[in-house]
Amino acid sequence: MAQTASTQQQMLYLLERPKEPFFIPKGDRNAVFEAPNNEYLVERFRPLADELGTRFGEDAGVRIRVGQITVPDISLPMQLGRNEFFSLFIPYHREMAGRLISVLMGMRNYDDFLSASVFCRDRVNPYMFVYALSVAILHRNDTKNLRLPPLSEIFPDKYLDSRVFPKAREEANVVQEASSRIPIEIQRDYTASDLDIEHRVAYFREDIGINLHHWHWHLVYPFNGPREIVNKDRRGELFYYMHQQIQARYNFERFCNGLGRVKRLHDFREPIPEGYFSKLDNTMASRVYASRPANMVLQDINRDVDQLVFDIQDLERWRDRIIEAIQLGRVINEKGESVDLTEMGGIDIIGNMVEASILTINRNLYGDLHNFGHVVIGICHDPDFRHLETYTPVADPSTAMRDPVFYRLHAFVDELFHMHKRTLPRYTTAQLDYPGIRVTGLEVITKGRNKNELATYWQKRDVDLSRGVDFSPRGAVFARITHLQHEPFIFRIQVENGTNAVQTGTVRIFMAPKFDERKLSMLFRDQRILFIELDKFIVELKPKVNVIERASSQNSLTIPWERTFRDLETNTPGTTPESQPFSYCGCGWPEHMLIPKGAPGGFPCELFVMVSNIKDDLVQQPKGQSACPNAASFCGLRDQKYPDKRSMGYPFDRMPRTGVDILSQFLTPNMMVTDVSIHHFDRTEPPPATDKPKQ
Amino acid sequence: MAQTASTQQQMLYLLERPKEPFFIPKGDRNAVFEAPNNEYLVERFRPLADELGTRFGEDAGVRIRVGQITVPDISLPMQLGRNEFFSLFIPYHREMAGRLISVLMGMRNYDDFLSASVFCRDRVNPYMFVYALSVAILHRNDTKNLRLPPLSEIFPDKYLDSRVFPKAREEANVVQEASSRIPIEIQRDYTASDLDIEHRVAYFREDIGINLHHWHWHLVYPFNGPREIVNKDRRGELFYYMHQQIQARYNFERFCNGLGRVKRLHDFREPIPEGYFSKLDNTMASRVYASRPANMVLQDINRDVDQLVFDIQDLERWRDRIIEAIQLGRVINEKGESVDLTEMGGIDIIGNMVEASILTINRNLYGDLHNFGHVVIGICHDPDFRHLETYTPVADPSTAMRDPVFYRLHAFVDELFHMHKRTLPRYTTAQLDYPGIRVTGLEVITKGRNKNELATYWQKRDVDLSRGVDFSPRGAVFARITHLQHEPFIFRIQVENGTNAVQTGTVRIFMAPKFDERKLSMLFRDQRILFIELDKFIVELKPKVNVIERASSQNSLTIPWERTFRDLETNTPGTTPESQPFSYCGCGWPEHMLIPKGAPGGFPCELFVMVSNIKDDLVQQPKGQSACPNAASFCGLRDQKYPDKRSMGYPFDRMPRTGVDILSQFLTPNMMVTDVSIHHFDRTEPPPATDKPKQ
Repeated sequence: MAQTASTQQQMLYLLERPKEPFFIPKGDRNAVFEAPNNEYLVERFRPLADELGTRFGEDAGVRIRVGQITVPDISLPMQLGRNEFFSLFIPYHREMAGRLISVLMGMRNYDDFLSASVFCRDRVNPYMFVYALSVAILHRNDTKNLRLPPLSEIFPDKYLDSRVFPKAREEANVVQEASSRIPIEIQRDYTASDLDIEHRVAYFREDIGINLHHWHWHLVYPFNGPREIVNKDRRGELFYYMHQQIQARYNFERFCNGLGRVKRLHDFREPIPEGYFSKLDNTMASRVYASRPANMVLQDINRDVDQLVFDIQDLERWRDRIIEAIQLGRVINEKGESVDLTEMGGIDIIGNMVEASILTINRNLYGDLHNFGHVVIGICHDPDFRHLETYTPVADPSTAMRDPVFYRLHAFVDELFHMHKRTLPRYTTAQLDYPGIRVTGLEVITKGRNKNELATYWQKRDVDLSRGVDFSPRGAVFARITHLQHEPFIFRIQVENGTNAVQTGTVRIFMAPKFDERKLSMLFRDQRILFIELDKFIVELKPKVNVIERASSQNSLTIPWERTFRDLETNTPGTTPESQPFSYCGCGWPEHMLIPKGAPGGFPCELFVMVSNIKDDLVQQPKGQSACPNAASFCGLRDQKYPDKRSMGYPFDRMPRTGVDILSQFLTPNMMVTDVSIHHFDRTEPPPATDKPKQ
Repeated sequence: MAQTASTQQQMLYLLERPKEPFFIPKGDRNAVFEAPNNEYLVERFRPLADELGTRFGEDAGVRIRVGQITVPDISLPMQLGRNEFFSLFIPYHREMAGRLISVLMGMRNYDDFLSASVFCRDRVNPYMFVYALSVAILHRNDTKNLRLPPLSEIFPDKYLDSRVFPKAREEANVVQEASSRIPIEIQRDYTASDLDIEHRVAYFREDIGINLHHWHWHLVYPFNGPREIVNKDRRGELFYYMHQQIQARYNFERFCNGLGRVKRLHDFREPIPEGYFSKLDNTMASRVYASRPANMVLQDINRDVDQLVFDIQDLERWRDRIIEAIQLGRVINEKGESVDLTEMGGIDIIGNMVEASILTINRNLYGDLHNFGHVVIGICHDPDFRHLETYTPVADPSTAMRDPVFYRLHAFVDELFHMHKRTLPRYTTAQLDYPGIRVTGLEVITKGRNKNELATYWQKRDVDLSRGVDFSPRGAVFARITHLQHEPFIFRIQVENGTNAVQTGTVRIFMAPKFDERKLSMLFRDQRILFIELDKFIVELKPKVNVIERASSQNSLTIPWERTFRDLETNTPGTTPESQPFSYCGCGWPEHMLIPKGAPGGFPCELFVMVSNIKDDLVQQPKGQSACPNAASFCGLRDQKYPDKRSMGYPFDRMPRTGVDILSQFLTPNMMVTDVSIHHFDRTEPPPATDKPKQ
């Protein structure tokens, strides 16, 4: 009876069923938080304190004693109602969340942190609480080795067809034995039909893993909060690169599906032809995510409830000033000084300025273009709050990537970065080559397939909803989703080291469509921004021939399927994350989305490999090992510098040197290109056995 | 333990928590339906039959043995998924519901009816089931004396702010003793702010009672189903009159709130400036009611899922043909014959044709204008189903009246009827007068107020949600709403009978705003269609002076606040409805909305009374008494003819005789007009003690 809960478990319990008050038993072991006094109860429940204590305390499997602290001042974060929409894109919400993060980060030790967290939990908006608590867990020294459960288990309503929830409630109530419960199948096409041509790539936009990645990225790289959290190495540049790669991947998927490249949303006056109806509930806020019919027009915003007043003209001025700054090659900081946009540092300034994060060089002058872009689209149906409406998914980082307009907005943002990149010096062959090193072979091997064939198919997975469906009986209830998957493969690369010594190099692997949307060959200048990174790793090259084999799962950007709440809870207390076979921190592109869908009969691509000279790549890191090395390309390394000194996107981030019109002309001896083909097989695999919970 | 359940209770249990399977205990007494065999269970639960029987059967307070029948063929109604939107305005849905009604009506005796109902309950769409079962209960001889619970308790999500449900779930789960539960307050202005000027009359549009009336009216007057149910006396005319009165009342409310008359929606190409965001969930369908942003444009409809294909041009052709028929004074029936639109019968033909019900004289020619009007507006955000979207509230009879556009559509429909009425002979003074009868006094008395002052204020009420929130602990959970209310008053009418004999007459009381929206006097031709009926009753007039006092609660159109599920369940079994102090059948304007809001300081109105000659009023009724006499003006009498032979709306339904420009010129000696004033007091009364349940 008198079991204990590890810090990992305690944090999990706080994150479970965020609308069930803290005194209701949590987790599979009926863990109960015991508050030091009634002050911790919200007002509504204080008169019932004795009854609640008896009723819920009796069957407690674990008691977590919460120490008494001077309760923190959270009047600012409490300004947002418990049932309101919360979004990081709204500055007022960021400010409230920032304050809450500061409160949680400021607790002197773990016990005080736990106590403060329990106190705040039932008082502030649950979305804000989960966000702030997650940022704090990730950044506090006494918790940063803990794992966060996937947000899709805390708030499954942000990730799954709303239809699943009443069915899950029925299943949980009618079928007592969790093991007899049947997963509730979610149709693959639940948001639209193919009459909507944008729906052809909905499997990408609405992928759980992709949306979890985007959320987690914003946890790791908050744009507000204590400065020491925000100001991470090359943060602005990573904002550019991560989103640029998303665009490249999305366009790649579009080509696979017979669609053209995304059209930039740079004219803020034009109707938006893409409608989006997410079918997402927002059960915590008791409001659904709003929908956007086709052809809505953006409007000036004046919403006192969100403390948000700006005009379309503001967006236009910020856009034009940023473009002017890029074209002049300098920005003006808050002191009125001119700051050059240098070859290596310029992109970082532009990233923070366009996003904008609190690191922006001049908010007054350059505004908050990207964030307000999300907001202005997300509320075009109620710009002055006359209808008391909340936002569409594009205005919430945890759901934004579902909406086709996300990619139109980011195509515009992306073009700002490319505009800057086009002003930079071209890479010379000296900057590209690695004297003495020649790549002499490149192939892809998928078991049972022809050489240089990649294969994709559909994979079902079961996602446990039970930690996100308030007030329903315990035990797992599953939603069964379907996502894209690829067959595992390996890269086989042959590299000749013509020197007499062992050399170290960075292997960079990219892939792009071979033809454009018209099925015609592409110019290098167009193709380069469609290259998606597939892997990056350091190799030692002994003299003469080296054959490097690298498995697809080893890549530098993805993480495997998320660990579930239940996995994390049942871990032996005290186990450190480092000792886990798959160590990761939740940020990272989903492994199952590494390879675009391709097409039946094969979609022609060009696979590119390069071995670059380590002397230009290597970064001097501070002492200590990062705990989260898996997905460094998109997420960086915790407590360390970004592990590649080159401009992100190298070697494709610049215009090519004179004379290079097509890819083959770009190659130096340390590079190679191979034709590969992605075959899509329209079969659906059942969920892996590992999805079944250990009850 | 072995209690029994009355037929009333059995039907209530079938209507409770429509998504909880039938084998889950129902009501406050844990009543369990015992199916004759496993065939009654839906497929999902058959493998669990034994476990379910033990688990739910053990604590049963009441066992309702369900007899075995040859299960009916409900393959047509089952074509609509359990989780889909259901609306009577969609012909395909009407057809399915009509089939289900026929099945239920066709059961030879009550036991078979119960058995068929249990069998159908968990198989067909819950909205359709509740609709069809309700129509059957109302029309079967063995059940027509039973009472239906208010739909707002079966599907509270169609009537109340969606925010209330998660809170209700929390309250029910955390607070075990129902008597300790605190009602969940719903803000009066939860759908919009006054930035939306249409919101000023939201208290009218979103009133629970008004929407329940509209729903119940359609139960009593279905436009599809067995012909003997549909073909009620003067059905088409009542469709006109009931909706005309709604328009008059709505315009009256608008004047009270400084708004002008509703603009007709007769141009189907024009953007609709009124947006509407209902904040209604559709929890059964697991989809919310869709929203309509401002300035949406109607589109051609092509939705295979609803078997619905029509063009805006179709609506235009039907509109123009109907107008032409009215202006020619004849319609063309399905045989191609010309049928005159006569003085008394024409309006009935037009009503059924415009609506259209199955009684329409020629569906091919005149189409389905009003119903498709609801549909085309309700789905303008997804006319071709590309986004897999369902409808806005205007496309569902239980919610349609909430949306400002309802009144714009019905202003158009109403004008068609007025167009016809303008072609009819004017009433002569002989047709209006009652020789020998003079009205010599008319006043309104509100206790504690000046003479001829009416008073309105806000009233809170508690609505029990617990029968509509699936899978939550038993016992009442209340939502606290606020509605308009008026202080009770009496009419005092003095009538002189100048003859020597007792005379019988019909007293007809109407009220209209004294001035138009510009605060200017109105022409009779404009004012007449703003008159709202307040009462109509038969009096005996002895010779000389008669003083008639009539209480506001006695009127001919309203019903008191709905009886609740719990009231109905705890009634002694076997009590017939007739023996109840407040006997009614659920159809009727809500009593609390009898009087428009008025204005602070008083809103000037004209009260009109007329005593008409019974010889032109009296209807020969078939034998037998109607069980539902309360709200005959809008709802007619069950199993009887409409109890007033005059054209509905008499004496205001026609253009006035030559020479009548203003109201005073219209009066014959048996009429009188008095200035009255409606004072609105911005105070809110707590819920009446009777709202508290008997636990």
